Amino acid sequence: MSTRACGRAVDEMRVVTITSNYTRHAEGSVLVEFGHTKVLCTASVVKGVPRFLRGKGQGWVTAEYGMLPRSTHSRMNREAASGKQGGRTMEIQRLIGRSLRAAMDLNKLGEYTIVVDCDVIQADGGTRTAAITGACVALAQALAWMKAKGMITTDPMKTLVAAISVGMVDGQAVSDLEYTEDSAAETDMNVVMTAEGNMIEVQGTAEGAPFTHEQLLAMLALARKSIDELVVHQRKAIASVE
Amino acid sequence: MSTRACGRAVDEMRVVTITSNYTRHAEGSVLVEFGHTKVLCTASVVKGVPRFLRGKGQGWVTAEYGMLPRSTHSRMNREAASGKQGGRTMEIQRLIGRSLRAAMDLNKLGEYTIVVDCDVIQADGGTRTAAITGACVALAQALAWMKAKGMITTDPMKTLVAAISVGMVDGQAVSDLEYTEDSAAETDMNVVMTAEGNMIEVQGTAEGAPFTHEQLLAMLALARKSIDELVVHQRKAIASVE
Amino acid sequence: MSTRACGRAVDEMRVVTITSNYTRHAEGSVLVEFGHTKVLCTASVVKGVPRFLRGKGQGWVTAEYGMLPRSTHSRMNREAASGKQGGRTMEIQRLIGRSLRAAMDLNKLGEYTIVVDCDVIQADGGTRTAAITGACVALAQALAWMKAKGMITTDPMKTLVAAISVGMVDGQAVSDLEYTEDSAAETDMNVVMTAEGNMIEVQGTAEGAPFTHEQLLAMLALARKSIDELVVHQRKAIASVE
Amino acid sequence: MSTRACGRAVDEMRVVTITSNYTRHAEGSVLVEFGHTKVLCTASVVKGVPRFLRGKGQGWVTAEYGMLPRSTHSRMNREAASGKQGGRTMEIQRLIGRSLRAAMDLNKLGEYTIVVDCDVIQADGGTRTAAITGACVALAQALAWMKAKGMITTDPMKTLVAAISVGMVDGQAVSDLEYTEDSAAETDMNVVMTAEGNMIEVQGTAEGAPFTHEQLLAMLALARKSIDELVVHQRKAIASVE
Amino acid sequence: MSTRACGRAVDEMRVVTITSNYTRHAEGSVLVEFGHTKVLCTASVVKGVPRFLRGKGQGWVTAEYGMLPRSTHSRMNREAASGKQGGRTMEIQRLIGRSLRAAMDLNKLGEYTIVVDCDVIQADGGTRTAAITGACVALAQALAWMKAKGMITTDPMKTLVAAISVGMVDGQAVSDLEYTEDSAAETDMNVVMTAEGNMIEVQGTAEGAPFTHEQLLAMLALARKSIDELVVHQRKAIASVE
Amino acid sequence: MSTRACGRAVDEMRVVTITSNYTRHAEGSVLVEFGHTKVLCTASVVKGVPRFLRGKGQGWVTAEYGMLPRSTHSRMNREAASGKQGGRTMEIQRLIGRSLRAAMDLNKLGEYTIVVDCDVIQADGGTRTAAITGACVALAQALAWMKAKGMITTDPMKTLVAAISVGMVDGQAVSDLEYTEDSAAETDMNVVMTAEGNMIEVQGTAEGAPFTHEQLLAMLALARKSIDELVVHQRKAIASVE
Repeated sequence: MSTRACGRAVDEMRVVTITSNYTRHAEGSVLVEFGHTKVLCTASVVKGVPRFLRGKGQGWVTAEYGMLPRSTHSRMNREAASGKQGGRTMEIQRLIGRSLRAAMDLNKLGEYTIVVDCDVIQADGGTRTAAITGACVALAQALAWMKAKGMITTDPMKTLVAAISVGMVDGQAVSDLEYTEDSAAETDMNVVMTAEGNMIEVQGTAEGAPFTHEQLLAMLALARKSIDELVVHQRKAIASVE
Repeated sequence: MSTRACGRAVDEMRVVTITSNYTRHAEGSVLVEFGHTKVLCTASVVKGVPRFLRGKGQGWVTAEYGMLPRSTHSRMNREAASGKQGGRTMEIQRLIGRSLRAAMDLNKLGEYTIVVDCDVIQADGGTRTAAITGACVALAQALAWMKAKGMITTDPMKTLVAAISVGMVDGQAVSDLEYTEDSAAETDMNVVMTAEGNMIEVQGTAEGAPFTHEQLLAMLALARKSIDELVVHQRKAIASVE
Repeated sequence: MSTRACGRAVDEMRVVTITSNYTRHAEGSVLVEFGHTKVLCTASVVKGVPRFLRGKGQGWVTAEYGMLPRSTHSRMNREAASGKQGGRTMEIQRLIGRSLRAAMDLNKLGEYTIVVDCDVIQADGGTRTAAITGACVALAQALAWMKAKGMITTDPMKTLVAAISVGMVDGQAVSDLEYTEDSAAETDMNVVMTAEGNMIEVQGTAEGAPFTHEQLLAMLALARKSIDELVVHQRKAIASVE
Repeated sequence: MSTRACGRAVDEMRVVTITSNYTRHAEGSVLVEFGHTKVLCTASVVKGVPRFLRGKGQGWVTAEYGMLPRSTHSRMNREAASGKQGGRTMEIQRLIGRSLRAAMDLNKLGEYTIVVDCDVIQADGGTRTAAITGACVALAQALAWMKAKGMITTDPMKTLVAAISVGMVDGQAVSDLEYTEDSAAETDMNVVMTAEGNMIEVQGTAEGAPFTHEQLLAMLALARKSIDELVVHQRKAIASVE
Repeated sequence: MSTRACGRAVDEMRVVTITSNYTRHAEGSVLVEFGHTKVLCTASVVKGVPRFLRGKGQGWVTAEYGMLPRSTHSRMNREAASGKQGGRTMEIQRLIGRSLRAAMDLNKLGEYTIVVDCDVIQADGGTRTAAITGACVALAQALAWMKAKGMITTDPMKTLVAAISVGMVDGQAVSDLEYTEDSAAETDMNVVMTAEGNMIEVQGTAEGAPFTHEQLLAMLALARKSIDELVVHQRKAIASVE
Repeated sequence: MSTRACGRAVDEMRVVTITSNYTRHAEGSVLVEFGHTKVLCTASVVKGVPRFLRGKGQGWVTAEYGMLPRSTHSRMNREAASGKQGGRTMEIQRLIGRSLRAAMDLNKLGEYTIVVDCDVIQADGGTRTAAITGACVALAQALAWMKAKGMITTDPMKTLVAAISVGMVDGQAVSDLEYTEDSAAETDMNVVMTAEGNMIEVQGTAEGAPFTHEQLLAMLALARKSIDELVVHQRKAIASVE
């Protein structure tokens, strides 16, 4: 199997670390690292649900995403200062929220909202997929906290979800793109899967040339392999705090 | 082949109409209809390019998307009045812009920006895919207008792009979801392809259960078939004004 | 009677068309055309009233106005993207709302709000007067819908209201200014009247030289004549859907 | 001539006072009082013109309007805190700006902008007409200041403009409505005229019943008389500082 | 004692005037002048308290601060037009609110909110300290109004608060800096004290060189003396309306 | 010396840690910890200066401050989502910026701006003082980076600045308040000093009873002692990366 400029094999992820209880106050708190990409994921349990769900006896899970201004190579403007969240931010936090809800049976949550904040401390490609992977662990920890408090009796989480970015770089399908690869990729694809390998989200974008059916299949196969590895990391992180 | 609640075959699109020159002022103007979904796409040629492209001798294509407040079953708030564009709007207009740029050789455009506005007059599912399909025709007309004016000498459009929404409804893959199907779909997938059947964007989302690899392949096959049909409509609309 | 650059007599309106049921979802929906000016007016019936009217047993009618970005000769910025509605937009939608309320006995409406959205598809002068004229028809249709549903028992509409722009162009008073006339007018005056010819709003603005008492009278006479004609169009459009 | 609840004759204005040099820093500064209505008008001379006028060798006059939160009977929200100017504010400041520009030959101003701020210290009806009347004096003083500095050589002001609110109250036409009359008026009309009695703006609004042609004429006659009186006050105020 | 460029002794305040009942509508209304600095302070009594205090049986006092656009030497942008209050404005209105609350026993106020608006009519240094000094008087008057209406039975005001700006200018400590001194000051310090000379707020900022412990003590001594004088003015203003 | 509820002596700081090079991209990057309070400070070197300094040949230092939504005991709203920075945020970032500039000779910086971002990862009282203390180290590192690149030749930093919060808790002056103390403090005072013990900023606020002159002196003495200790930590952190 040919290697890439970064020295990794095409199906080789960067070093993945999931650190539990990274901060003190949140009900779930995880620092997830995919190589140099570092995202802090905190899960906050809040009484009540959004207006459109009131009185239905079910819960809600939502996500917010942000980047620290100097998480990136050159400084980005702070969204709080510019007065609105950009389109990319909104797109990513909607994706994280949908992915987490796909892992949940919201009827078992009761009228609680869990807000998962994903804040990028350092960016080097793949922040949204690292965020989903870490957010799922933070969510699991918050659910364990709720169970310990007697707020829920059965586990609302049906499965784990994890995510990986794959793409076409220099004509070959590769997994877990770091920043320099991401910038040069012909195609960039984010895949969210369950622990069982079923798909929650597939978002492939041709940045340069369009991609073919065969390339799509090659990228999906890499995604499946990496997500299997990520689920192992997730399980270890969840077990570590029980 | 089994049929659906709406009476169509699983691979059968709604009636598609593309009306050229729908309004007078824009350099390209198209009303695209997928059944009851109606989107007005206008292409405006503007001198100059965004700051990040200045002096590079290339052009830019961007898109904006909006829904009239009562294009929908119940009235939506007007985004201009609430003071910001929602996450869904931003996500869709970014998608339209990327899709159109994938069809273009921006170096052949010169330092012009083409802004394609996609405004939904009436919504019944599939507004973003209708928008992309219509926007590509409006863009082609604006380029023809530029050529007639001597602003460009070669055609910057490399291929046509069109888009379709496919999904899993009641356990079967179907094409061109209308609103009632869209609301009930287990999976909703938007596919943007070139006239040659290569992929520009694939965005699949599990709304209910996750989807399998086989379901993904079934949906993609439907998308390919529908997009081939859409390209025929696009070609006719473009030819009609030459 | 002398003619104008556009070929019309000074008291001659452009071709007026009012198309009912232009879109499917709204309780009232009208496309109104004054020549090339085209405005889509939809009336939406919403349960409840604004806070300041709660518990008073009466209803409310309000209006919103917008222009599609390329309804105009050169593209305007989208107000949703710039984050606020401009002064002209606010001024116009307040005018439409006041005009419609002047036609209504709100005590007969019950605690409902009717929101009339006026969106300019194509602009060629006189968009606000076309909007008022069309909005009144859309409102009448929404009231008919409410009556059919048993939501109201008596008709809250006391009279029809219609509006026309008149002005001083090249020293003579003319009716129904199109864009090129509007830009060159010394005085521009919008007049809203009831079917009986009484005045709801008179807004005259000297763009160049001030206007005299005699000029004001001449413009008002033209307005009266054109509004009489518009009311005939409105009555036909309302009758067509009963 | 019959009198009104407030004790004034129908054509009788409240006590009018125009105090020059009310504050120190502005190039023109006037406190205008129509009875209890008090508006501070300051004119600021700023180098340069808005983008759309650059290089044309002409100047610009614009206005901004605001109300102190407790200028009114019950406290209004501060627009700076709520993050936007309301529709009424925008409408009024556009009216003031247009009225002042109608008095000016902007070609004689050179590339300067004069910003006239009209801030309501205390409101009791007629704030916009008091503002226009005072703003015209502040503008004249700023022009005198420019002339003294040698920034202009000829006077760009062609005439004085003043404004009055008239209306139909209890079936009779009255001039200079105070707050309690304004709230009860069937029709409210703001009239802006030149010193010669020609019209700059006429804005009549039926708040209750529509108004007739005869009522319009009666209100205009009152407006003419009051504006003649206001111009005398303006002339005195301008003379007082020369 | 050495004098300053402005001719005052180092411990000498400008002429202080506090005019009660400056406007008609507010429950408390004061124009406070420190030399050319003029601030209008109005206190508005509003039923109810902010959400975080509901049901606790206590009241609330809050403040808002604004500058008229031409209160300053050169015109500032209007915050309502730019769409947000700047950092300086927010900082000052938070300071005023805290200072006033420190003078109050909010439990004796009942569930009312008193909003004190401080609007700068003319600025010449020390606007925030003049505002606090005047706001305290307006607050006292509003409380007297409440007592007269039977809304409160005991006086919630525990003491008077007043404020002064002191600083290091040309190496010497001086009191009540006017604008030219403020611009040149090495250190600027705002001190808020009770009538008894205890401290509510001390905010010292080195604009040039850091300041020493001895300089701090010298500035505090001046502040104490000036605040003693201000309290005499406050008492007179309060007595004048009883 | 009596101790406090937290077990510390009145003049005893929490454990202080300053970790250099905490993230990779910024020119200076420090994690500063005062006990459980953790703030990430990054310094970014940007070419150019704000408009008001252009062409003066000097540089600029500014700061921005933010809190991660779940840095606090209960989740705060994300300022980027609510569309504006609150008053507290603005006040703090203005304080940080002023404090850092007081340490600098901006003429030696050249036309560069250094933006220091202070983002609170975990809050337990004293975030603004920790931020200033850490920001000064990040700034020093960025200056060392600039010197290594030849962008500056002499060191623009004149001295170190550090900050501490002191206060009156249960009637005694204490240093370095943690959250539970801060909530209960009668007086809260933030002090910024140079390494030499001169004052940059003193901001004391009576939250409950006013504070006396003696209490102010006691708090200042504690501040001096703690800041001396902080400067030792700063020097070690700066030395560690040279």
